[in-house]
Amino acid sequence: MNNDNLFHNIHEECGVFGIFGHPEAANLTYLGLYALQHRGQEGAGICSSDGTKLFLEKSLGLVADIFNEKVIKKLPGHIAIGHNRYSTTGSSTIENVQPLMATYSLGSIAIAHNGNLIDIDPLKQRLERDGAIFQSTSDSEIILHLIARAKSGEPRERIANAVRQISGAFSLLLMTETELIAIRDPYGIRPLALGQIKDSYVVASETCAFDLIGANYIRDINPGEMLIINENGLNSIKIFNSVKPAHCVFEFIYFARPDSYIFDHICVNTVRKELGRQLAREHAVEADLVIPVPDSGVPAALGYAEESGIPFEFGLIRNHYVGRTFIEPKQSIRHFGVKVKLNPVRDALRGKRVIVIDDSIVRGTTSKKIVKMLRELGGAKEVHMRISSPPTIGPCFYGIDTPTRQELIASSHKIEEIRKYTTADSLGYLSIEGLRKVIPNSDIYCMACFNCKYPIEFQSKKVSQLELFE
Amino acid sequence: MNNDNLFHNIHEECGVFGIFGHPEAANLTYLGLYALQHRGQEGAGICSSDGTKLFLEKSLGLVADIFNEKVIKKLPGHIAIGHNRYSTTGSSTIENVQPLMATYSLGSIAIAHNGNLIDIDPLKQRLERDGAIFQSTSDSEIILHLIARAKSGEPRERIANAVRQISGAFSLLLMTETELIAIRDPYGIRPLALGQIKDSYVVASETCAFDLIGANYIRDINPGEMLIINENGLNSIKIFNSVKPAHCVFEFIYFARPDSYIFDHICVNTVRKELGRQLAREHAVEADLVIPVPDSGVPAALGYAEESGIPFEFGLIRNHYVGRTFIEPKQSIRHFGVKVKLNPVRDALRGKRVIVIDDSIVRGTTSKKIVKMLRELGGAKEVHMRISSPPTIGPCFYGIDTPTRQELIASSHKIEEIRKYTTADSLGYLSIEGLRKVIPNSDIYCMACFNCKYPIEFQSKKVSQLELFE
Amino acid sequence: MNNDNLFHNIHEECGVFGIFGHPEAANLTYLGLYALQHRGQEGAGICSSDGTKLFLEKSLGLVADIFNEKVIKKLPGHIAIGHNRYSTTGSSTIENVQPLMATYSLGSIAIAHNGNLIDIDPLKQRLERDGAIFQSTSDSEIILHLIARAKSGEPRERIANAVRQISGAFSLLLMTETELIAIRDPYGIRPLALGQIKDSYVVASETCAFDLIGANYIRDINPGEMLIINENGLNSIKIFNSVKPAHCVFEFIYFARPDSYIFDHICVNTVRKELGRQLAREHAVEADLVIPVPDSGVPAALGYAEESGIPFEFGLIRNHYVGRTFIEPKQSIRHFGVKVKLNPVRDALRGKRVIVIDDSIVRGTTSKKIVKMLRELGGAKEVHMRISSPPTIGPCFYGIDTPTRQELIASSHKIEEIRKYTTADSLGYLSIEGLRKVIPNSDIYCMACFNCKYPIEFQSKKVSQLELFE
Amino acid sequence: MNNDNLFHNIHEECGVFGIFGHPEAANLTYLGLYALQHRGQEGAGICSSDGTKLFLEKSLGLVADIFNEKVIKKLPGHIAIGHNRYSTTGSSTIENVQPLMATYSLGSIAIAHNGNLIDIDPLKQRLERDGAIFQSTSDSEIILHLIARAKSGEPRERIANAVRQISGAFSLLLMTETELIAIRDPYGIRPLALGQIKDSYVVASETCAFDLIGANYIRDINPGEMLIINENGLNSIKIFNSVKPAHCVFEFIYFARPDSYIFDHICVNTVRKELGRQLAREHAVEADLVIPVPDSGVPAALGYAEESGIPFEFGLIRNHYVGRTFIEPKQSIRHFGVKVKLNPVRDALRGKRVIVIDDSIVRGTTSKKIVKMLRELGGAKEVHMRISSPPTIGPCFYGIDTPTRQELIASSHKIEEIRKYTTADSLGYLSIEGLRKVIPNSDIYCMACFNCKYPIEFQSKKVSQLELFE
Repeated sequence: MNNDNLFHNIHEECGVFGIFGHPEAANLTYLGLYALQHRGQEGAGICSSDGTKLFLEKSLGLVADIFNEKVIKKLPGHIAIGHNRYSTTGSSTIENVQPLMATYSLGSIAIAHNGNLIDIDPLKQRLERDGAIFQSTSDSEIILHLIARAKSGEPRERIANAVRQISGAFSLLLMTETELIAIRDPYGIRPLALGQIKDSYVVASETCAFDLIGANYIRDINPGEMLIINENGLNSIKIFNSVKPAHCVFEFIYFARPDSYIFDHICVNTVRKELGRQLAREHAVEADLVIPVPDSGVPAALGYAEESGIPFEFGLIRNHYVGRTFIEPKQSIRHFGVKVKLNPVRDALRGKRVIVIDDSIVRGTTSKKIVKMLRELGGAKEVHMRISSPPTIGPCFYGIDTPTRQELIASSHKIEEIRKYTTADSLGYLSIEGLRKVIPNSDIYCMACFNCKYPIEFQSKKVSQLELFE
Repeated sequence: MNNDNLFHNIHEECGVFGIFGHPEAANLTYLGLYALQHRGQEGAGICSSDGTKLFLEKSLGLVADIFNEKVIKKLPGHIAIGHNRYSTTGSSTIENVQPLMATYSLGSIAIAHNGNLIDIDPLKQRLERDGAIFQSTSDSEIILHLIARAKSGEPRERIANAVRQISGAFSLLLMTETELIAIRDPYGIRPLALGQIKDSYVVASETCAFDLIGANYIRDINPGEMLIINENGLNSIKIFNSVKPAHCVFEFIYFARPDSYIFDHICVNTVRKELGRQLAREHAVEADLVIPVPDSGVPAALGYAEESGIPFEFGLIRNHYVGRTFIEPKQSIRHFGVKVKLNPVRDALRGKRVIVIDDSIVRGTTSKKIVKMLRELGGAKEVHMRISSPPTIGPCFYGIDTPTRQELIASSHKIEEIRKYTTADSLGYLSIEGLRKVIPNSDIYCMACFNCKYPIEFQSKKVSQLELFE
Repeated sequence: MNNDNLFHNIHEECGVFGIFGHPEAANLTYLGLYALQHRGQEGAGICSSDGTKLFLEKSLGLVADIFNEKVIKKLPGHIAIGHNRYSTTGSSTIENVQPLMATYSLGSIAIAHNGNLIDIDPLKQRLERDGAIFQSTSDSEIILHLIARAKSGEPRERIANAVRQISGAFSLLLMTETELIAIRDPYGIRPLALGQIKDSYVVASETCAFDLIGANYIRDINPGEMLIINENGLNSIKIFNSVKPAHCVFEFIYFARPDSYIFDHICVNTVRKELGRQLAREHAVEADLVIPVPDSGVPAALGYAEESGIPFEFGLIRNHYVGRTFIEPKQSIRHFGVKVKLNPVRDALRGKRVIVIDDSIVRGTTSKKIVKMLRELGGAKEVHMRISSPPTIGPCFYGIDTPTRQELIASSHKIEEIRKYTTADSLGYLSIEGLRKVIPNSDIYCMACFNCKYPIEFQSKKVSQLELFE
Repeated sequence: MNNDNLFHNIHEECGVFGIFGHPEAANLTYLGLYALQHRGQEGAGICSSDGTKLFLEKSLGLVADIFNEKVIKKLPGHIAIGHNRYSTTGSSTIENVQPLMATYSLGSIAIAHNGNLIDIDPLKQRLERDGAIFQSTSDSEIILHLIARAKSGEPRERIANAVRQISGAFSLLLMTETELIAIRDPYGIRPLALGQIKDSYVVASETCAFDLIGANYIRDINPGEMLIINENGLNSIKIFNSVKPAHCVFEFIYFARPDSYIFDHICVNTVRKELGRQLAREHAVEADLVIPVPDSGVPAALGYAEESGIPFEFGLIRNHYVGRTFIEPKQSIRHFGVKVKLNPVRDALRGKRVIVIDDSIVRGTTSKKIVKMLRELGGAKEVHMRISSPPTIGPCFYGIDTPTRQELIASSHKIEEIRKYTTADSLGYLSIEGLRKVIPNSDIYCMACFNCKYPIEFQSKKVSQLELFE
């Protein structure tokens, strides 16, 4: 139950949704969370307010399974926030499912957090020294404590003061009995967009949530902004000094839905496809087919195919009915792990020179299984792996659930070594320069996972640990 | 979510069980909770420790439904505490199910609480002023905050300091990674007994939990005692100055299981039967039968029958398969509410003058239904109601789930008025003097529900509210 | 899945309830089943009809858990039958939960069956020879096949013809789209009563079901009667020649609820108590206390106490919160099996000479545990066991779930041997003559479990098996 | 509960899997069903045999949710068959989930059926006249009755005789205690393939099930073949006279997984893509983009794009986390129904002339919603709808869940009328000739849904109903 290691915190890659001023606030939040389901499948929750009291329902599981009419009825009111929690092994407890709700000196407050805090140890130690108790292992609980401990002021002042004490990535939705408050860290690491549906305001991690409920995009919550939404409308407060933004480039590469617009309304699908084109320019190879690792590799594969002129093919079919766990037979089945999700289309692959496009390589084990499957089951003559992002060499401390540095194959292996490990005939990663070319205004992005340049200085001595790995 | 009213706190009438030093700590705790199921049916939880880490499993529902082998396996270790929560309407949320567990500056701690705190508003206000956040509506969370806020000292010192700040009824089990700590308020309001099974120590609300697991009773945890149980054995610390005890007399009258021994090992069944004898001496009436309202009225009815020489009969049969809610047909059924639980044995009652024994009258509505049912369905010629306790005129602030003063029929009505309301031919309550005669050493008991003499002074201004009702 | 052994059929000790002509037929059936829950806890089902179509809902579990508003809504119409299934180990499959429903040449039909058929092997073999398929292991399915195979005639004729081919105990409720049909075997082995609530007719295994819904008892369904209830009212048809009835005496001794009236409206509680009185007359012993094994032993213990003048006491407390299975710790607990249900009241028993009253002894193992518990835990000086029925020497083929002959301790052991086995100081069974004295008109009862005189001749060669055991 | 209408039978579009001779038969069957999940999501079941006894587990829900280690353990043995049931509204009852299991004169038998029988009314009437009872509304139960009613012979002879009496589409797996039997109707309407994994034989609806467990394809079960698999290996019996096959062409167009090989091992993906090419040749139009309706329209869209030279784009994103039902807000959301599944990628579509490829149009309502969404939300300038199959004018009686003739928009509307209804700028269907060109050996396919030429003559007078609609 101890959060004492910077590298083993529970990562908060999640989706958030909030709405103010709608008579069916909880119902729309449920739909918003459903549209954001790809950002977290472990659990979900909704907190609503009828103006005087907060109501909370949360559970482990998928949005469509947790919320039914009976549950939605228990969430009255015109304000609501919701949260999808990412599935990380070993911490599947109801205590960590958000929103977190608490009462404190000024009333009730709830929080939904996308992102990951850093340098929380000194904060936690200080809070614990001052007598705080922690009932979850979620970093987000720290924020509630900081708000409660603010010496004086209205809730909004306290919230601003609290948030100024934390560091890291945070796209936050907070809620009192009467207000919805959206906050984004000064670097704008995670996305957070503001929309409108009739007279109601909505806030969501991605615009695909707006599309489902018929809301219009207005603008992003600005980095460093606290936006208070209440009966009087919008009230924007700049609570952080301006710094150069550091949007997470990985949202484009893998995490966001392709039909979403993020980071001041850039289309994810367009970027992803352009990454494929650039990849083709950088790593051409003679081949018969370009195939994606579905679903995330699809747009880049299309881009690669268009740029290279090599035909695009759906050479791997994905089974979407994946459950939590699989009962593997005792007599092991070849490629079982990857075959539960993917199956090659042999007719399309047999005897072909295949370029397979994936968005990234983490440990390398899945890539290896895919290459082998394409060759052994699919009958591909050659398998050329192309990755639509640069080598992943740095762990993410801002909310993407990457493993520790040591487990990242590219942090300690040359590309040729990785190629050998995956058994691919050739392997090409997009270059950082290529990535920069594709992403508009690319210097306002965090690319730490590719270049280890972390935009936020670590206060904690734990930074040294990071260095030690190099 | 606000606990701001002294009279609407969630009442903590519950059962607790703890064990130290047993390889199957969680399994025995589960059995202990099962034996204590009558003390709370809303939810249950177990927290265990393997010496380095706490594990928690809790859920709404009955003990036998919540815990199976798979769940017990998730609770390793040699220390465990468990809690049964009383069913009170409207607050059935998992957040309030105990044990509560938290981390703080010195590590992890869990708490299981039987009883009810009073004067918590100033405490909560002070804590909230100091920045505390509350994530449940359970009073017990206050105790964790007080422990965490202690300026210094070992856990046990902090716990002692914390507990010295609270007021009310508390039979507490606390648990760290390495210790089990049992504490009882200075008045010893709720029961708490210490037992032994081989080399392990057990603590439980009632001795019936010892019986099931084969443990022997050693002694009660003393009022005002903090008993620390760890690798070095027992360590008893007196953390409160001595006061005259104020054991809850209602545990004898209604709440405890008849086979349990409470308050320095007095047999509940024996007391309950003697109450019936005394009631017979005080309120004799010519009749053909003595029948109990099962199950709690049985021993007193036996006592009344023995003393009066009038035959005892099981004139009301109780259906024990009661679920949470019943789907009543639209076409209302006479006496439906009470018939779901009780059915008269007509053959035994027809034409008879019946004395019906119940342990208490709260609002009077159930008594009225029973009298009518005995007469109309059972065919009783006369129905004489006898109550094995004095009129209930004061609400309990120490953990029994009584309604507010206004709802207590005896607080504002004369006995003859109550008789008329229930339609009984006669009505007799045990006198307070009679009660004192039966209970050994009766001046060390709280009888506030019968005489409004609350043993603990209210600090809060809310006391005036109580007065106002008189 | 084979029903090929006469002695291993699934025993159909169950409860049935039916209603015709009520707009809330399913809701009242649910309440009726709830009142009859003691007759079967494994599963329950309700089939309703709106006049044109049958609707069926059934599940494993308790009535109060299976049926909620949502399920009741799926059961529209003014006719309904319901069934509680007895829990027998190893056959807990949804296929065997009743009512069974089927379509055949004349439409739809559903059946709920209390009792047990005998000589089903030739019937099944004949049906299978004729091409029948069996989809459950329930004997009741045979009846549906026989009805469907009748060459011609209206449903009621076919039903009569079908039922004339079966042998054994059957209190049946059948239902078509438009009729409710109640049938009782010619011996009237199991109870079945007719009642009325306003303009609706109800049929139930026991009258306690009438009490809950406010119905009045009219009369029993007669042995050998087929009672058709439809828009035109009641139509009684005698479908069997008269034989001397053979009501199951064990319903009085153990199975029925004490507040029920069975077999032409005899009060179960009254009989049970009288059995205790007679037992006292037959097996007096000097003692200090008479205690029952709750709940079924209570009335007989009261009768014994009254007759003997020895004080009645509740010396064993029963825990009613019993779940399906218990996780016993690896380190075995003394008396665990019986302690999960019963705990002695030590204060009442210590040093006392105790007469313990139970309704019957089957294998003897439970009796032995109870005697030991009373002595070792309860501290009783002497334990005299008294049984309010004669020695159980014959298995029941008519629906009581008794074990095979070999397992019945009294079938092969003298009373002194049984006493030694149970370690009781003395043991007395009620005599058959005593039983006959108590039961009014006792020659119309089946007492085969006590005297091996089976009222229905076995056609099957399997009878020899029964003889062989002697 | 009546199956009396030819047009409202429950359609049996399902997936089947069987295995003989594997120690983990049930586990592999579970994996096979998981791979076939796309063929039916309403419920699933597995029946296994240990050589002497059958074991059955079935439930409503998805394969990955129904089967866990505990359930698989209840299915011992080396033989197993499994079934995925298609979701059809209104008939979600456990009784209809397969395999169906029954006992009859020769022992136990279980059946799993993919396909749909026709002319069952005379059969059912005959069976009912002979006394059969039906306990499900599944046609497959008829087959069990026919087997049980065969006058004599071994199980295999009876099965052959039974199957010769039925008409329609059936790919059947049957199972006794010792044998696995696979049967395909003489037209080979539904697919059924034989494979091998080590020494075990497997049978499955599609080869994607072989891929997951690592089995090799051997051959198809032939139309009209009964293949008996037991300890002695394979034994093939021709139980029907040869007729011209009539494979379901719709399996290629929509139903089968693209990575499967069906109908003598033709790759579904290859056919589907070629359909797109042919569609492009037939219905060229000037446009900027070709987009599929995912997932089934993807290969055809790729083919269309390749042939036309117009860029392929993923213009619609599908949300795969779809639950059973959605709680739509009271204030209706535009395009809600289709937006729950699909969302346009605006950046890719805005101002573009878009060709959208779908596999078929049934009622036309979804197509209309998609066209409007592409235009209104996506901003497409033109929307040209292209369908990779001919107009669907005839309902399927062989197992595809199409609506009645009246509901098929193309059965009563000209293409221009359909275009107007969908609001598309243009609409083109693949021609029947085009379809024939693409499908190898196309005269051995059933194309009744496109040309109303039903390969199996209807015996029933109900055929006239079909005509009446024209």
